[in-house]
Amino acid sequence: MNDNNNLSVSKQSISRRELQKLVQTQLKMLLEVNNLEGAKTVLVPVLPVDIADAIEGLPKAMQAIAFRLLSKDEAIEVYEHLEPKVQQLLIEDFKRQDVLDIMDKMSPDDRAKLFEELPAKVVRRLLAQLSHEERENTALLLGYKPNTAGRIMTPEYISLKEGWTVDRALERARRLAPTTETIYSLYVTDAVHRLSGYVSLRNLVIAKPEQTIGEIMDRNLVCVHTDTDREEAARLLQRYDFLAIPVVDAEKRLVGIITVDDAIDILHEETSKDIHIHGGVQSGGDRYFHSPFYSIIRRRALWLIVVFIISCLASVIIQAQEKVLEQAIILAVFIPLLMDTGGDVGSQSSTVVIRGLNTREIDSHKALWAIRREAIAGALLGLMLGVVAIVWSYFLQGDLLIALVVGLTLLVISVLSTIVGTALPFLFSFLGLDPALMSAPFITTIADVLGVLVYFYIAKLILNL
Amino acid sequence: MNDNNNLSVSKQSISRRELQKLVQTQLKMLLEVNNLEGAKTVLVPVLPVDIADAIEGLPKAMQAIAFRLLSKDEAIEVYEHLEPKVQQLLIEDFKRQDVLDIMDKMSPDDRAKLFEELPAKVVRRLLAQLSHEERENTALLLGYKPNTAGRIMTPEYISLKEGWTVDRALERARRLAPTTETIYSLYVTDAVHRLSGYVSLRNLVIAKPEQTIGEIMDRNLVCVHTDTDREEAARLLQRYDFLAIPVVDAEKRLVGIITVDDAIDILHEETSKDIHIHGGVQSGGDRYFHSPFYSIIRRRALWLIVVFIISCLASVIIQAQEKVLEQAIILAVFIPLLMDTGGDVGSQSSTVVIRGLNTREIDSHKALWAIRREAIAGALLGLMLGVVAIVWSYFLQGDLLIALVVGLTLLVISVLSTIVGTALPFLFSFLGLDPALMSAPFITTIADVLGVLVYFYIAKLILNL
Repeated sequence: MNDNNNLSVSKQSISRRELQKLVQTQLKMLLEVNNLEGAKTVLVPVLPVDIADAIEGLPKAMQAIAFRLLSKDEAIEVYEHLEPKVQQLLIEDFKRQDVLDIMDKMSPDDRAKLFEELPAKVVRRLLAQLSHEERENTALLLGYKPNTAGRIMTPEYISLKEGWTVDRALERARRLAPTTETIYSLYVTDAVHRLSGYVSLRNLVIAKPEQTIGEIMDRNLVCVHTDTDREEAARLLQRYDFLAIPVVDAEKRLVGIITVDDAIDILHEETSKDIHIHGGVQSGGDRYFHSPFYSIIRRRALWLIVVFIISCLASVIIQAQEKVLEQAIILAVFIPLLMDTGGDVGSQSSTVVIRGLNTREIDSHKALWAIRREAIAGALLGLMLGVVAIVWSYFLQGDLLIALVVGLTLLVISVLSTIVGTALPFLFSFLGLDPALMSAPFITTIADVLGVLVYFYIAKLILNL
Repeated sequence: MNDNNNLSVSKQSISRRELQKLVQTQLKMLLEVNNLEGAKTVLVPVLPVDIADAIEGLPKAMQAIAFRLLSKDEAIEVYEHLEPKVQQLLIEDFKRQDVLDIMDKMSPDDRAKLFEELPAKVVRRLLAQLSHEERENTALLLGYKPNTAGRIMTPEYISLKEGWTVDRALERARRLAPTTETIYSLYVTDAVHRLSGYVSLRNLVIAKPEQTIGEIMDRNLVCVHTDTDREEAARLLQRYDFLAIPVVDAEKRLVGIITVDDAIDILHEETSKDIHIHGGVQSGGDRYFHSPFYSIIRRRALWLIVVFIISCLASVIIQAQEKVLEQAIILAVFIPLLMDTGGDVGSQSSTVVIRGLNTREIDSHKALWAIRREAIAGALLGLMLGVVAIVWSYFLQGDLLIALVVGLTLLVISVLSTIVGTALPFLFSFLGLDPALMSAPFITTIADVLGVLVYFYIAKLILNL
C-alpha cells in the first residue's frame, strides 16, 4: 500500500499533463494491437475527466471501442466530460439501449447541455425514450432561455421540512447521497414548496440529533430566479463563498440549484468570451481552437469589416489635408507613432473599465468619476510621452516646430483617447449593450481617426499652413 | 416566520445590489445621528461580505464605529472580507486586545494575506502576540514564495488514519467542524504524515459505521506541491470538480489544503491580471479602481514607453522613404487604414493564443499547428480585406496602381501579423515568460512597423519608384 501511495504521489511530480499524455499514448498503442484487457488496466487508476481527454485524443474509429471498456458507472461520468462533438459521435455509434442507459443516468444539467447541441430530431427521439422523471427534468431545463440560471441548474437537490429533526434530515441526506448532485447544501421548503431556509451538512453534523431544522436553519437566504443571467448567478455564488445557490421560479418555489463546480466553469466560459470579444474575436465560448475553422473566419471577418470602415475615415481626413501634407511631408513620418501611442493609452482605459464593469468592481453610477480619473491619467501620461516625442522628433528631423506639433498632438490625443476609452464602455453598458463590444481595437481605431484630425489641425495652427 | 421568508425572498427581487446600497445608506444615516442600536438592527439580517462592503463605503471615521457594533464571531468573518487598506486602518484604531482577539481567530490563509500588506514592524509585533499554534501556522504560510500553493493554502484541514472506522472518522469531523475550513474533504495520512488517500464526507455518510477508512478511501490522488503555482493549483481543482485540493511538501507530507472558494478568487484575480496585461496595463490583481492612482500611472507609463520606442522604428522607416513619399504623397493617405486593419488581424490571433495558453486549451507542442492555422486565417481575411481596400482606395483616389499597392499590402500584412501574433506568445511561453506580455498592443505595434516596411517596398516595386 505504501508503495502505491508513493507511486501515486510521485506520479504527481512528473506533472498531471505528462501523466495525461502518457495514458493517451499507452491507450492508443494497446488499442492498435487490440489488447483490450491491457487498455482496461491502463485506465483503472485514471480519473474520469482524464479518461475523457484521452478518448478525445484518439482517432474517431477508436473512440467508441475505448469507451466500451469502461464500467457502466464510469462510462456515465466520462461521457459527461466529453466534448459535445464526441458525445454526439458516440450516440450515433451505439446500440439504442446503451445510449438510453447513459442518457437516463446523466445529470440533468449535463444532459440539457448535450441536447442543446444535438439535432432537434435526435433530441425528440431521445426525450421520448427517457424515463418519465428524467424526461420531465430535461424538458424543464430546456424550457428556460439559454444563458439563464434555469437552463444550467440541476433539479437534483435535497429539500427538507422545517418540522423535521436533524436526525431525520441526516437520514434523508444519507439516502439521497448516491443520486443527488450535492449533499452539502440542503434547502428547506414549506408546504407549497417555497424556499424558506438553508442548512449546510456541516451544521447538521454539529447540531444535536433531536433539534429541529427550523431551529438551526439559516433564514437569511440568497437565491436567484430561473431567468437570472447565469454569469450573475455564478458571481453571487463566488461572492458569498457558497457551494451551491438555490434557484426559484416566479412563485418563489425552489426548482433547482447551481453547484460551485458548474459556477466555476460558467465564469471561465464567460471570461473567455469577454476576452475574445475584447480582442475582436466574436466567440461563442472558450474553445476557440476546437471550433470549426470557417465559422471562426466568418465571425472575425464581420468584425474586421466594421473596424475597416471606421478606419476609412482616417484616409478621408488625410486626403482632405493633402495640401498641408505636400507642404510638410515630414508630417507623414510621425503618423504611425502618434496613432500607436494614442491608441494604446486609450485601450488601457477601455481594458480596465470593461473588466471593472464585468466583474462589478465599478458600475454606471461611477462613470463620471472614472472618466475624470482616466482623463487625468491620460493628461499625465500624455505630458510625459509628449516630452519624449519632442526630443525624439527633433533628433530625427531637426525641426523644432514639427517637434512641437508632434509633442502637442500626443498630449491632446492621450487625453481624448482616455476619455473615449472610458466613456464608450460606460455608454454601452448604460444602453444595455455588452461593454466588451467597445473593445481595445475599436477604441484604437476611433482614437486614430480623432488623432489624425487633431494632428493636422495642430500642424496647420503651428506651422501656419 | 412565513412573513420573514417572503420578505427575504422578495428582497431578492429588488436585486442584491440595490439591497446592498440600501443597507449602506441606512447604516450611514443611523451612524450620523449616533443611533447605534438602530444601526445594529439594520445589520442583523445582512451577510458578512455585504456588511464588509457597507463598512468600506463609510467615511473613514465611521468605519471603526460600525465595526464595533458586530458580535465577536461576526466581526472576525466581516474582517476577513474587508480590503487590506481598511483592515489596516482598523488595526491602528483598535485596542491591542481587540486586535489580538481578531488576529488569533482569523483563518490562517486570510491572516497571511493581511500580513503581506502590513508594515514589517507591525507584523512582527502581531506575530509575537499570537497564540503559539496560530503563530506557527502563519509563519509557515509566510515562509512560502508569493503566488505559490503553499502561500494560499490553509493548514486547517481534517486528517484521518487508514485503520480508523467510519464512525470514528465521523466523530472527528463532528468535533473539528466548528474550527476547520471544510469538513467535506478529508485526507488520510500515514504514520509520518504522508498523504495516502482521500475520503469525501459524502462517502463517509454513505458507508457503514464499522467499515475502515482504508476500505473506502480513494488512493488515486491529485495533489499539488507547496511550490506549485497557485493558478495551476486552482485550475486542477476546477478540472477535477474538487471542493478542495491537498498540498504536500517535498517529503510528500500533507501540509495544507486549498478550498474551492479560494480557488475561484485566485482564478478571478489571475484572469484580471491577464486581461490587464493584455490591454497594456500592468496590474497586481483585480482591483484596478481601488489601487493608488500614482502607482497605476507609473506602471502604465513604463509600458507605454516600451511601445513608444518600438513605434519610433516606424518613423525611421518612413523617414528613410521620404523620397518615395515625395513622389507619391497619396501613399500617406492609406497609412492609418493599413496599420489599423493589419494590427487588428494580428491582435485577434494573439488574443486567442494567449487565452488558449493560459487556460491550457493549447500548449507549446501545438505551436506550429496553431501558426499554420492562423496564417491561413490571415490569408483568407487579408484576401477579403484586400479586395475591399482596392475598391475603396480606387474610389477615393482613382489611381488603379495605388489601389493595387494598398490591397496587396493589406494581404501581406494580414498574413505577417497573424504569424507574429501567434508565434510571439508561443515563444514567450516557451522561454518561460508570461505569454500575456505579448499582448494585443505590442502585436499591433510590431505589426505596424512591419506593415510600413512592406507598404513602401511594395509601392516601390509596383510604382517603379
